[in-house]
Amino acid sequence: MASKKTIKTLDDLFLHTLQDIYFAENQIAKNLPAMAKKVSNPELKQGFEQHLAETHEQITRLNDVFGMLNEKPKGEECPAIEGIIEEAKALMGEIGDAHVLDVAIAAAAQAVEHYEISRYGTLIALAKQLGHKDAIKLLQATLAEEKATDAKLTKISESPAFKQAA
Amino acid sequence: MASKKTIKTLDDLFLHTLQDIYFAENQIAKNLPAMAKKVSNPELKQGFEQHLAETHEQITRLNDVFGMLNEKPKGEECPAIEGIIEEAKALMGEIGDAHVLDVAIAAAAQAVEHYEISRYGTLIALAKQLGHKDAIKLLQATLAEEKATDAKLTKISESPAFKQAA
Repeated sequence: MASKKTIKTLDDLFLHTLQDIYFAENQIAKNLPAMAKKVSNPELKQGFEQHLAETHEQITRLNDVFGMLNEKPKGEECPAIEGIIEEAKALMGEIGDAHVLDVAIAAAAQAVEHYEISRYGTLIALAKQLGHKDAIKLLQATLAEEKATDAKLTKISESPAFKQAA
Repeated sequence: MASKKTIKTLDDLFLHTLQDIYFAENQIAKNLPAMAKKVSNPELKQGFEQHLAETHEQITRLNDVFGMLNEKPKGEECPAIEGIIEEAKALMGEIGDAHVLDVAIAAAAQAVEHYEISRYGTLIALAKQLGHKDAIKLLQATLAEEKATDAKLTKISESPAFKQAA
């Protein structure tokens, strides 16, 4: 990131946040398959596979939002998602037991979801203020998916079948 | 973080997650004052000051939870919160305009809140499964505060007085 004051307006901040989440979504798409591969619980594994498909769709929506702003899709390095993913990988490397690993992976995925929920919330608030009506709809569709994924991860983690593996 | 498989049980994962959020809360306590100092909007500034006081209380609660486990309070380096804070600082350095800076700082604080919400959610789920009844109450008190702070930040950001500064 340059050290000049390059973000002068809310429009600039909207674009910057869009580039941040674009980078984040692409990192998630890149790292989800390796996480899914380490999952033992079938329901959790299926959840990861579904979310990977959703992530690709979410990236397509972001491409569309860039298009609405007449901007080319571009990622801005996002130390937050890098830190969250780095932490997840380090934690996974510490765990041998299959069930403990499933619990840790579900928790790591929820940290990712919450990061996305906060960023899409910010993007929607800015889009409303800036009058980007078409963008709002796309961003809200993604936010709803992220919240549903978070809720699903909680539901799976609390299911008797999942806990029985302990 | 060591590369050996040091997390063998859900008890180990609970303790590890506790050490992770203990590190994170201390980083937040350290960095909140500098963020608050850059805020112009009085309501937002007051919100940051209140949350700093809450953060100190939340650290006290974590000390108590460590005590319940007969463990000494200890932080485990948390790349996720480091990344979130690093990103917030870099973004703040890019912005000169006071109102745009307020919007960005509120958004950065919401990313922090969502990280905490995800971790306290995981800790509560593990505490329930492991039967740490007294810990659950303390962790739930903190989770309620984090959610309230996130909601308050949304409310401030959406208030007409805040938007008028644009």
